[in-house]
Amino acid sequence: MPASAVPVNLAEKFAQFSDLWSQKKVAVVNDYEVKLAKLKGEFVWHTHEDTDELFLVVSGRLIIQLRDGDVTLEPGELFVVPRGVEHCPVAEEETAILLLEPAGTMNTGDAGGPMTKAAENLG
Amino acid sequence: MPASAVPVNLAEKFAQFSDLWSQKKVAVVNDYEVKLAKLKGEFVWHTHEDTDELFLVVSGRLIIQLRDGDVTLEPGELFVVPRGVEHCPVAEEETAILLLEPAGTMNTGDAGGPMTKAAENLG
Repeated sequence: MPASAVPVNLAEKFAQFSDLWSQKKVAVVNDYEVKLAKLKGEFVWHTHEDTDELFLVVSGRLIIQLRDGDVTLEPGELFVVPRGVEHCPVAEEETAILLLEPAGTMNTGDAGGPMTKAAENLG
Repeated sequence: MPASAVPVNLAEKFAQFSDLWSQKKVAVVNDYEVKLAKLKGEFVWHTHEDTDELFLVVSGRLIIQLRDGDVTLEPGELFVVPRGVEHCPVAEEETAILLLEPAGTMNTGDAGGPMTKAAENLG
Protein backbone atom coordinates (compact mmCIF):
# COMPACT_ATOMS: atom_id res chain seq x y z
CA MET A 1 0.00 0.00 0.00
CA PRO A 2 1.47 3.40 -0.91
CA ALA A 3 2.15 5.78 1.94
CA SER A 4 -0.59 8.06 0.70
CA ALA A 5 -3.23 5.33 0.90
CA VAL A 6 -4.28 6.19 4.43
CA PRO A 7 -7.81 7.31 5.24
CA VAL A 8 -8.52 10.70 6.78
CA ASN A 9 -10.10 10.20 10.18
CA LEU A 10 -12.18 13.30 10.84
CA ALA A 11 -12.16 12.97 14.64
CA GLU A 12 -8.37 12.64 14.66
CA LYS A 13 -7.99 15.67 12.42
CA PHE A 14 -10.30 17.79 14.55
CA ALA A 15 -8.22 16.79 17.61
CA GLN A 16 -5.14 18.29 15.96
CA PHE A 17 -6.25 21.91 16.18
CA SER A 18 -8.22 24.23 18.38
CA ASP A 19 -8.08 27.63 16.71
CA LEU A 20 -11.43 28.99 15.60
CA TRP A 21 -12.40 30.22 12.12
CA SER A 22 -9.28 28.71 10.58
CA GLN A 23 -9.78 26.28 7.71
CA LYS A 24 -7.58 23.18 7.65
CA LYS A 25 -7.12 21.29 4.39
CA VAL A 26 -7.45 17.53 4.80
CA ALA A 27 -8.12 16.25 1.28
CA VAL A 28 -8.08 17.28 -2.35
CA VAL A 29 -10.51 16.13 -5.05
CA ASN A 30 -9.24 17.39 -8.39
CA ASP A 31 -9.24 21.17 -7.93
CA TYR A 32 -11.52 21.12 -4.91
CA GLU A 33 -10.48 21.05 -1.27
CA VAL A 34 -12.05 19.37 1.73
CA LYS A 35 -11.40 21.55 4.75
CA LEU A 36 -12.23 21.33 8.44
CA ALA A 37 -12.94 24.22 10.79
CA LYS A 38 -14.06 24.92 14.32
CA LEU A 39 -16.43 27.81 14.76
CA LYS A 40 -17.83 29.71 17.70
CA GLY A 41 -19.53 33.06 17.60
CA GLU A 42 -20.44 35.02 14.52
CA PHE A 43 -18.40 35.30 11.31
CA VAL A 44 -18.78 38.14 8.80
CA TRP A 45 -21.39 38.61 6.11
CA HIS A 46 -19.83 37.75 2.76
CA THR A 47 -20.48 36.37 -0.68
CA HIS A 48 -18.58 34.00 -2.95
CA GLU A 49 -19.47 35.34 -6.38
CA ASP A 50 -17.86 32.50 -8.29
CA THR A 51 -18.61 29.36 -6.34
CA ASP A 52 -21.08 27.39 -4.30
CA GLU A 53 -19.90 26.40 -0.82
CA LEU A 54 -20.79 23.20 1.02
CA PHE A 55 -21.08 23.06 4.82
CA LEU A 56 -21.43 19.74 6.68
CA VAL A 57 -21.80 19.87 10.46
CA VAL A 58 -19.89 17.15 12.32
CA SER A 59 -20.59 18.32 15.87
CA GLY A 60 -22.29 21.30 17.48
CA ARG A 61 -24.84 23.39 15.65
CA LEU A 62 -24.37 25.89 12.84
CA ILE A 63 -26.72 28.64 11.80
CA ILE A 64 -26.09 29.97 8.32
CA GLN A 65 -27.72 33.35 8.23
CA LEU A 66 -29.02 34.37 4.82
CA ARG A 67 -30.57 37.73 4.04
CA ASP A 68 -33.98 36.11 3.77
CA GLY A 69 -33.76 33.72 6.69
CA ASP A 70 -31.60 31.28 8.63
CA VAL A 71 -30.65 27.69 7.88
CA THR A 72 -29.85 25.63 10.97
CA LEU A 73 -27.59 22.62 10.63
CA GLU A 74 -27.34 19.87 13.21
CA PRO A 75 -24.66 17.14 13.11
CA GLY A 76 -25.05 14.99 10.00
CA GLU A 77 -26.67 17.80 8.06
CA LEU A 78 -25.23 19.63 5.07
CA PHE A 79 -26.16 22.72 3.13
CA VAL A 80 -24.83 24.33 -0.02
CA VAL A 81 -24.78 28.11 -0.11
CA PRO A 82 -25.21 28.99 -3.79
CA ARG A 83 -22.73 31.30 -5.44
CA GLY A 84 -23.68 34.93 -5.13
CA VAL A 85 -25.79 34.42 -2.00
CA GLU A 86 -24.68 36.53 0.93
CA HIS A 87 -24.32 34.55 4.14
CA CYS A 88 -22.95 34.75 7.65
CA PRO A 89 -22.27 31.64 9.74
CA VAL A 90 -22.87 31.76 13.47
CA ALA A 91 -22.45 29.11 16.16
CA GLU A 92 -23.55 29.52 19.75
CA GLU A 93 -21.52 26.54 20.93
CA GLU A 94 -18.23 25.37 19.46
CA THR A 95 -19.09 23.65 16.22
CA ALA A 96 -16.99 21.42 13.97
CA ILE A 97 -17.66 21.53 10.26
CA LEU A 98 -16.41 20.11 6.99
CA LEU A 99 -16.27 22.47 4.02
CA LEU A 100 -15.99 21.73 0.34
CA GLU A 101 -15.19 24.30 -2.31
CA PRO A 102 -12.67 25.01 -5.06
CA ALA A 103 -9.04 25.34 -3.99
CA GLY A 104 -8.15 28.93 -3.23
CA THR A 105 -11.62 30.02 -2.13
CA MET A 106 -11.10 32.61 0.60
CA ASN A 107 -13.07 32.30 3.81
CA THR A 108 -14.42 35.85 3.76
CA GLY A 109 -15.22 35.90 0.06
CA ASP A 110 -15.77 39.45 -1.18
CA ALA A 111 -15.85 40.95 2.31
CA GLY A 112 -12.20 40.79 3.35
CA GLY A 113 -11.40 42.21 6.78
CA PRO A 114 -9.55 40.95 9.85
CA MET A 115 -11.01 37.42 9.75
CA THR A 116 -9.66 36.76 6.26
CA LYS A 117 -7.32 33.80 6.39
CA ALA A 118 -6.07 31.35 3.80
CA ALA A 119 -6.70 27.68 4.44
CA GLU A 120 -3.81 25.83 6.07
CA ASN A 121 -2.49 22.35 5.58
CA LEU A 122 -3.18 19.95 8.40
CA GLY A 123 -1.09 16.87 9.00
CA MET B 1 -36.44 31.66 3.76
CA PRO B 2 -36.58 30.26 0.21
CA ALA B 3 -37.96 26.76 -0.18
CA SER B 4 -34.55 25.54 -1.25
CA ALA B 5 -32.92 26.70 1.98
CA VAL B 6 -33.42 23.41 3.78
CA PRO B 7 -30.48 21.36 5.03
CA VAL B 8 -29.86 17.84 3.79
CA ASN B 9 -30.13 15.44 6.72
CA LEU B 10 -27.98 12.44 5.82
CA ALA B 11 -29.79 9.99 8.11
CA GLU B 12 -33.16 10.98 6.65
CA LYS B 13 -31.83 10.60 3.12
CA PHE B 14 -30.37 7.17 3.83
CA ALA B 15 -33.75 6.12 5.26
CA GLN B 16 -35.37 6.91 1.92
CA PHE B 17 -33.77 4.07 -0.02
CA SER B 18 -32.56 0.54 0.44
CA ASP B 19 -31.24 -0.55 -2.95
CA LEU B 20 -27.55 -1.38 -2.98
CA TRP B 21 -24.87 0.04 -5.31
CA SER B 22 -27.20 2.80 -6.51
CA GLN B 23 -25.97 6.36 -6.13
CA LYS B 24 -28.49 8.96 -4.97
CA LYS B 25 -27.80 12.63 -5.61
CA VAL B 26 -28.47 14.83 -2.59
CA ALA B 27 -26.56 18.05 -3.30
CA VAL B 28 -24.74 19.90 -6.04
CA VAL B 29 -21.65 22.09 -5.59
CA ASN B 30 -20.99 23.86 -8.86
CA ASP B 31 -20.41 20.97 -11.29
CA TYR B 32 -19.79 18.41 -8.57
CA GLU B 33 -22.37 16.10 -7.01
CA VAL B 34 -22.71 14.79 -3.48
CA LYS B 35 -24.19 11.31 -3.67
CA LEU B 36 -25.19 8.69 -1.12
CA ALA B 37 -25.04 4.94 -1.56
CA LYS B 38 -25.53 1.74 0.38
CA LEU B 39 -23.07 -1.02 -0.36
CA LYS B 40 -22.80 -4.68 0.53
CA GLY B 41 -20.58 -7.24 -1.11
CA GLU B 42 -17.99 -6.56 -3.77
CA PHE B 43 -18.26 -4.07 -6.62
CA VAL B 44 -16.20 -4.32 -9.83
CA TRP B 45 -12.62 -3.26 -10.43
CA HIS B 46 -12.64 -0.01 -12.37
CA THR B 47 -10.80 3.23 -12.98
CA HIS B 48 -11.90 6.82 -13.42
CA GLU B 49 -9.31 8.15 -15.81
CA ASP B 50 -10.42 11.76 -15.59
CA THR B 51 -11.31 12.36 -11.97
CA ASP B 52 -10.49 11.74 -8.35
CA GLU B 53 -13.30 10.21 -6.28
CA LEU B 54 -14.01 10.90 -2.62
CA PHE B 55 -15.52 8.25 -0.32
CA LEU B 56 -16.74 9.11 3.19
CA VAL B 57 -18.10 6.28 5.33
CA VAL B 58 -21.15 7.21 7.40
CA SER B 59 -21.92 3.76 8.82
CA GLY B 60 -20.57 0.25 8.38
CA ARG B 61 -17.09 -0.40 7.05
CA LEU B 62 -15.71 -0.02 3.55
CA ILE B 63 -12.64 -1.62 2.11
CA ILE B 64 -11.33 0.05 -1.01
CA GLN B 65 -9.18 -2.52 -2.72
CA LEU B 66 -6.30 -1.06 -4.71
CA ARG B 67 -3.91 -3.10 -6.81
CA ASP B 68 -1.17 -2.53 -4.27
CA GLY B 69 -3.18 -2.92 -1.08
CA ASP B 70 -6.43 -2.19 0.71
CA VAL B 71 -7.66 0.97 2.40
CA THR B 72 -10.17 0.34 5.18
CA LEU B 73 -12.60 3.10 6.08
CA GLU B 74 -14.55 3.20 9.33
CA PRO B 75 -17.39 5.66 10.01
CA GLY B 76 -16.09 9.23 10.00
CA GLU B 77 -13.22 8.38 7.69
CA LEU B 78 -12.74 9.54 4.12
CA PHE B 79 -10.40 8.62 1.30
CA VAL B 80 -9.80 10.03 -2.15
CA VAL B 81 -9.02 7.53 -4.90
CA PRO B 82 -6.81 9.44 -7.33
CA ARG B 83 -7.74 9.56 -10.99
CA GLY B 84 -6.30 6.69 -12.94
CA VAL B 85 -6.00 4.38 -9.93
CA GLU B 86 -7.85 1.11 -10.32
CA HIS B 87 -10.02 0.26 -7.33
CA CYS B 88 -12.76 -2.08 -6.17
CA PRO B 89 -14.95 -1.27 -3.15
CA VAL B 90 -16.10 -4.12 -0.93
CA ALA B 91 -18.23 -4.13 2.21
CA GLU B 92 -18.80 -7.18 4.37
CA GLU B 93 -21.71 -5.57 6.20
CA GLU B 94 -24.14 -3.05 4.74
CA THR B 95 -22.29 0.22 4.58
CA ALA B 96 -23.55 3.75 3.99
CA ILE B 97 -21.26 6.16 2.19
CA LEU B 98 -21.15 9.68 0.84
CA LEU B 99 -19.45 10.20 -2.52
CA LEU B 100 -18.17 13.36 -4.13
CA GLU B 101 -17.13 13.65 -7.75
CA PRO B 102 -17.93 15.63 -10.89
CA ALA B 103 -21.50 15.39 -12.17
CA GLY B 104 -21.88 12.62 -14.69
CA THR B 105 -19.14 10.39 -13.29
CA MET B 106 -20.30 6.80 -13.88
CA ASN B 107 -20.10 4.34 -11.02
CA THR B 108 -18.17 1.70 -12.93
CA GLY B 109 -15.79 4.13 -14.64
CA ASP B 110 -14.02 2.47 -17.56
CA ALA B 111 -15.22 -1.03 -16.69
CA GLY B 112 -18.88 -0.91 -17.67
CA GLY B 113 -20.84 -4.10 -17.13
CA PRO B 114 -24.10 -5.03 -15.43
CA MET B 115 -23.52 -2.89 -12.31
CA THR B 116 -23.25 0.29 -14.37
CA LYS B 117 -25.94 2.71 -13.28
CA ALA B 118 -26.37 6.46 -13.52
CA ALA B 119 -26.85 8.36 -10.29
CA GLU B 120 -30.49 9.04 -9.41
CA ASN B 121 -32.13 12.02 -7.82
CA LEU B 122 -33.32 11.52 -4.27
CA GLY B 123 -36.05 13.66 -2.74
